[in-house]
Amino acid sequence: MDFAPSPRAQELTELVRAFMTEEIEPVEAAYHQELKRRREAGKGEQWQELPIMKELQAKARAQGLWNLFLPAGHEGPYAEKYGTLGGTGLSNVDYAPIAELTGRSFIAPYVFNCNAPDTGNSEVLLKYGTQAQKDEWLDPLLDGRIRSAFLMTEPAVASSDATNMELTAVIDGDSIVLNGTKWFSTGVGHPDCDIFIVMGLTDPEADRHHRHSMVLVPRNTPGVKIERMLNTMGFYDEPHGHGEVSLTDVRVPRENFVSGPGEAFAIAQGRLGPGRVHHCMRLIGLAEKSLELAIERGTSREAFGKKLINLGGNRERLAQARIAIESTRLLVLNAAWKLDVGGAMNAISEVSQIKVAAPRMALDVIDFAMQIHGGGGMTDDFPLAGAWTGARSLRFADGPDEVHLGLIARLELMKHGVSR
Amino acid sequence: MDFAPSPRAQELTELVRAFMTEEIEPVEAAYHQELKRRREAGKGEQWQELPIMKELQAKARAQGLWNLFLPAGHEGPYAEKYGTLGGTGLSNVDYAPIAELTGRSFIAPYVFNCNAPDTGNSEVLLKYGTQAQKDEWLDPLLDGRIRSAFLMTEPAVASSDATNMELTAVIDGDSIVLNGTKWFSTGVGHPDCDIFIVMGLTDPEADRHHRHSMVLVPRNTPGVKIERMLNTMGFYDEPHGHGEVSLTDVRVPRENFVSGPGEAFAIAQGRLGPGRVHHCMRLIGLAEKSLELAIERGTSREAFGKKLINLGGNRERLAQARIAIESTRLLVLNAAWKLDVGGAMNAISEVSQIKVAAPRMALDVIDFAMQIHGGGGMTDDFPLAGAWTGARSLRFADGPDEVHLGLIARLELMKHGVSR
Amino acid sequence: MDFAPSPRAQELTELVRAFMTEEIEPVEAAYHQELKRRREAGKGEQWQELPIMKELQAKARAQGLWNLFLPAGHEGPYAEKYGTLGGTGLSNVDYAPIAELTGRSFIAPYVFNCNAPDTGNSEVLLKYGTQAQKDEWLDPLLDGRIRSAFLMTEPAVASSDATNMELTAVIDGDSIVLNGTKWFSTGVGHPDCDIFIVMGLTDPEADRHHRHSMVLVPRNTPGVKIERMLNTMGFYDEPHGHGEVSLTDVRVPRENFVSGPGEAFAIAQGRLGPGRVHHCMRLIGLAEKSLELAIERGTSREAFGKKLINLGGNRERLAQARIAIESTRLLVLNAAWKLDVGGAMNAISEVSQIKVAAPRMALDVIDFAMQIHGGGGMTDDFPLAGAWTGARSLRFADGPDEVHLGLIARLELMKHGVSR
Amino acid sequence: MDFAPSPRAQELTELVRAFMTEEIEPVEAAYHQELKRRREAGKGEQWQELPIMKELQAKARAQGLWNLFLPAGHEGPYAEKYGTLGGTGLSNVDYAPIAELTGRSFIAPYVFNCNAPDTGNSEVLLKYGTQAQKDEWLDPLLDGRIRSAFLMTEPAVASSDATNMELTAVIDGDSIVLNGTKWFSTGVGHPDCDIFIVMGLTDPEADRHHRHSMVLVPRNTPGVKIERMLNTMGFYDEPHGHGEVSLTDVRVPRENFVSGPGEAFAIAQGRLGPGRVHHCMRLIGLAEKSLELAIERGTSREAFGKKLINLGGNRERLAQARIAIESTRLLVLNAAWKLDVGGAMNAISEVSQIKVAAPRMALDVIDFAMQIHGGGGMTDDFPLAGAWTGARSLRFADGPDEVHLGLIARLELMKHGVSR
Repeated sequence: MDFAPSPRAQELTELVRAFMTEEIEPVEAAYHQELKRRREAGKGEQWQELPIMKELQAKARAQGLWNLFLPAGHEGPYAEKYGTLGGTGLSNVDYAPIAELTGRSFIAPYVFNCNAPDTGNSEVLLKYGTQAQKDEWLDPLLDGRIRSAFLMTEPAVASSDATNMELTAVIDGDSIVLNGTKWFSTGVGHPDCDIFIVMGLTDPEADRHHRHSMVLVPRNTPGVKIERMLNTMGFYDEPHGHGEVSLTDVRVPRENFVSGPGEAFAIAQGRLGPGRVHHCMRLIGLAEKSLELAIERGTSREAFGKKLINLGGNRERLAQARIAIESTRLLVLNAAWKLDVGGAMNAISEVSQIKVAAPRMALDVIDFAMQIHGGGGMTDDFPLAGAWTGARSLRFADGPDEVHLGLIARLELMKHGVSR
Repeated sequence: MDFAPSPRAQELTELVRAFMTEEIEPVEAAYHQELKRRREAGKGEQWQELPIMKELQAKARAQGLWNLFLPAGHEGPYAEKYGTLGGTGLSNVDYAPIAELTGRSFIAPYVFNCNAPDTGNSEVLLKYGTQAQKDEWLDPLLDGRIRSAFLMTEPAVASSDATNMELTAVIDGDSIVLNGTKWFSTGVGHPDCDIFIVMGLTDPEADRHHRHSMVLVPRNTPGVKIERMLNTMGFYDEPHGHGEVSLTDVRVPRENFVSGPGEAFAIAQGRLGPGRVHHCMRLIGLAEKSLELAIERGTSREAFGKKLINLGGNRERLAQARIAIESTRLLVLNAAWKLDVGGAMNAISEVSQIKVAAPRMALDVIDFAMQIHGGGGMTDDFPLAGAWTGARSLRFADGPDEVHLGLIARLELMKHGVSR
Repeated sequence: MDFAPSPRAQELTELVRAFMTEEIEPVEAAYHQELKRRREAGKGEQWQELPIMKELQAKARAQGLWNLFLPAGHEGPYAEKYGTLGGTGLSNVDYAPIAELTGRSFIAPYVFNCNAPDTGNSEVLLKYGTQAQKDEWLDPLLDGRIRSAFLMTEPAVASSDATNMELTAVIDGDSIVLNGTKWFSTGVGHPDCDIFIVMGLTDPEADRHHRHSMVLVPRNTPGVKIERMLNTMGFYDEPHGHGEVSLTDVRVPRENFVSGPGEAFAIAQGRLGPGRVHHCMRLIGLAEKSLELAIERGTSREAFGKKLINLGGNRERLAQARIAIESTRLLVLNAAWKLDVGGAMNAISEVSQIKVAAPRMALDVIDFAMQIHGGGGMTDDFPLAGAWTGARSLRFADGPDEVHLGLIARLELMKHGVSR
Repeated sequence: MDFAPSPRAQELTELVRAFMTEEIEPVEAAYHQELKRRREAGKGEQWQELPIMKELQAKARAQGLWNLFLPAGHEGPYAEKYGTLGGTGLSNVDYAPIAELTGRSFIAPYVFNCNAPDTGNSEVLLKYGTQAQKDEWLDPLLDGRIRSAFLMTEPAVASSDATNMELTAVIDGDSIVLNGTKWFSTGVGHPDCDIFIVMGLTDPEADRHHRHSMVLVPRNTPGVKIERMLNTMGFYDEPHGHGEVSLTDVRVPRENFVSGPGEAFAIAQGRLGPGRVHHCMRLIGLAEKSLELAIERGTSREAFGKKLINLGGNRERLAQARIAIESTRLLVLNAAWKLDVGGAMNAISEVSQIKVAAPRMALDVIDFAMQIHGGGGMTDDFPLAGAWTGARSLRFADGPDEVHLGLIARLELMKHGVSR
């Protein structure tokens, strides 16, 4: 149970920390202001990437802070070409403090080419893609030339039970034909988002976990339509956004299956594990950032003759936030370590544990920070409203709390020989 | 301790219920869609009132569902002219079930001319206004011809301690000169919002609770500037909105003091009591509406072979929501009843109790409803995101939780003879 | 929704309040000390009633403070003979403030002949008993000459599902023969406890809710054995206690059925409603008493240069306790009022709501009081440890929280036309 | 951040696990029954140690499972003579899994000579004792021939602020004279408890943290009187117990100061750190044991046609318990590791964090276990009532939650340069 990052990871962490302080933090306010100006101008410009993003990416890449998420164990040409460490990759424990730092900012993960869902999609292609699929999609993804989306959740069914998915991905000769509607397709708003991984029903007669497939669908395929971008708690998260996408008689070559028909669940299991851990790592950073803001506000304003932080139960809430952050960070490190030493199957309960614990912890800390900011805490003068919304959405994304709790309980009972 | 509404109030409640069902609910979706269309068109049209609002107002008024908030005990020409009951007014207990119903909809309070802050401002004018002030501002407010705003909170200080307020309202001969900045000035976005009640510092030498005054400032007075409309959790709440307003050498006649210089705290105490109770009544309705949505969703979708409501702890959460709503409704009724039988000073603790309890209860219920809706619960396909944001803002508005808890504790200790 | 007690009830409340202050509070410490002395002497004397109890009962009875629980609507010879009001009885709303007062003391309910389970047992006999049963058992119960017990819960099965009960009460000619074991049989430790109402399985072939019967079993019937008295959280609650009782070939005449074979569930439903409400009323008093102790301690001791109550979040906790007590009291009154106006079937959800809410509220308040007392709060120098244990046991007694939550949810869903 | 125990510690852990399973668990029920028999016999025999304890100690010692708490870094004759590892000692991280195991049983810590307060007292003597003090008291303590007590908390003042302590320990020539009263003096009930470490006020004129001293007071010194043993939540925890002790003109030689007059706070800081960590380690084990009992009960009983664990929110509560235990265990390991790498001053916040988090976590898990056991969970048929009481008392012992939260907040603010 060694949660210490390797020396190389520590160096990278310090480089990322410096980059955050020197390059990202100074420009964030202006970035969000310009984004807001565009949004409110009503011309849709907010869906274009701001030029500064490519500049920041170039700077980060020049320092070797690029694709740091690329996991150890995938040595090979792509890792060598685009990975930071000459292709050896960081362990999950190594990556944790880096991801935590990037979680302090809405734009940082993208700057380092480490943002969801591109990370998960890259991992899928790396692990399950054919050479042709890799050449066509993985190469530009790791190079930052294109973006990707993952189309899983559907508006018409309870997608918490993934076997409910109704979009069809039927084999028709040499083609796959897709029909149906997805939503919460994160990233489809971005102009560079060229490739979708779509999960669909291929064989309703197969057993429950072999009915669905993952299919590579280029965005410009006829029949693909972005019906709308979703507003979540008032936010669109431009330019990436979360879209509702309809697929009507969308036809792609049969080669576009990832790993073959009926393999969606097998792939998803592996894909979602690290993705969930990354989300949780970033939530730790988001909570730390929020707590810093709370302390800053609480010690710089006064009411009733005292600093805000010294009123009522505020200090106790500060202490509770510290306890909550520390214990959740350790829980995340533990899941990362279990993934490192034994792979996804070794960490099923641990990943579900953090998937439940981290968003709730972050929401509590952000809420405290918001409250100590007064009404201002809800405005876009501070990043707290966005932070809250991001953390809240992670109580659904990649499986709602309730599904993860159910899984933890089931594994716990299995330890005691109880199967149902 | 009789919480039963009078027969007349029961009749009105049923009329309001029918009006909600027949006139408001059927048009709400289209209303929000059109508002969204305008918002996203980027031309600022969302800050115009939609035509349907005046139509609905006319219908409601025709049925006598107009100014129902006007409290008993203010018999007189204005109550006679604009009140529902020939001027006798409803008690707080009578008004509770009506306000609860209007709380189910974002637009209903306005339709019945019962929305904050116009209600509180009208009460202030009714109770403290001179005849001239009433003629000029109260008459059109009750008639629905104009809207009003209440400018209290300031961006530069912790406004939870109202004595922190820095905007100056200085007497200069026959004038009052105002300088400073306010924010969270709800309603200033509306084109009809013609009059502001501004709270400012008049005499820094006076004792702590006699330094500030309330001043009537017409919106078009030179030096008044709406600096920006505030975005709260992604929402602008158009067309009313919450503004940041600067006042630079704004000069109004000395007659524009409400009740005289240094009287702001005395007025505020009376103004905020019923206003807080109204907010809490509406929150009960908002929670009921959210629980209905949760049940509807939870019983109409399935996962893992069961209705969502029958999975995991969902039924327990449903039951807890019922308990929380019932006990909070009773607490609100109790505060209303205490106000009715003994006035504001009789209900200080009770009003603070509901001001703490009602938003928290509502947030819990809405959060449960959101969770059972999956990601969709955060989108504007459902009113839950707006409901959450509205309830969250009420943990700050009219005094943050912490101030109310402090007040409750102080009163409790005073019962035991402890003054500090 | 009128929660105001009648003038007669208000008078009685004041009499009870005075009696508590003048007669009970002054002797409580000595009572508990003597009980402790007896307990630790190891001779079993703690299972004898202390002489002062009969003295207190006589004084209370002389003031008409006797059997106040006896409900309105049971006019008749017994109500006339032993009831306070010449047999008219108090409504549940009337009784609420009285029961609340008695809940402040461990001995008060008994002093007024208003203690569980005698109250519920008396109601059962009053409502369902034959004249002979009433003459033999109800008369001395209401006269305070004997005590009674209610034998329902069983050690070997999950009694939260009452249909699980396995003790048999089989008809054998003119006799009923009982075999099985019960526990948590409150009151069987008392030397005057002469009569048990035993719930047993009579006809396993009948439908689920008509299999069980209630049977009157005199304690001295051959085959009845008190196996042991139960220790709950370290307490025996002498001299009443909670016993484990075995019944081996216990034979009583067939006339000892209450209301006939198979009627246990029908009776239990009526019996448990008011009993649960009484428990909750008393819990309000217990919480108020605990909060008073917290304030007394918090304002009389200092640490770090401040009164304890002024440290950290203590004042906020005090305020939260006040909110919790007020809202739960109102919820209890609401259930009482629903019982009064429509009977048990009218208040099923409401009774379950308070059965969940009141013990949890009381536990929170008591825990706060305990914490502010430091380690002393757990000792028998203060009544808090006993209060906590009593409130905790009410999360099981008369149905665990989970069963009540399930019932509330079911009723809520039925409102929406969902039956499963 | 390496939380892995050393190979030697892992071996010891397995030995302890086996000893628990083979030697302790099989005799626990009989132990508690005999203790109960003695307690209820009223002859005080419960204050004698049961013979099996010495037998178990001998067996444990024979396997080298003795004084495992003795920390690394105290090499020397005593460690060599009585320590397990030839005097090298275990790190805190090494000791954690061992202490966790012993926390599953009320008697195990004693069996391994690893029980509070003897461990902390031994550490004090090891670190601060003179050779004579060590010879006289440390040698027999490590040998298990005597027991000890630590007299700190006082009944008359808020001892959460240790500077409140009023017992005087005044220098009078070659003597120290002690006067005052202590309570919650754990262990004084045991017949072998021969030595007390007493904290008293020596110089009221010194600065706030140099007024108090620690003094070695043999129990049989004239003037020492055990006034009574304290009942906490109904328990006496015989034969060790928690006593109230008066000291009246108690005179001991000046050599009995530990580390000199005025040094109490300096010593206490070091003493309480590891002691708190040990408590928290044991609480993890107690929670695990309780969760096992919950699962056992929840899967072996049925209600409403289902296993209890499958009803309502029970599986979610089980999952939440797993998350809470895991994250708290990691938090405890983190504090242990910080102690190991940097000593007490390096881990002040971390120790306070676990002192707040671990008892609350344990109480939640135990409460869940209790609830799933129904009323039985409160009886002494199960260890849950004792577990709850033990965990509850740790929200006061060694500093109440509120003091630790205050300390965490202060350290957090200091990181941001805020000193008050």
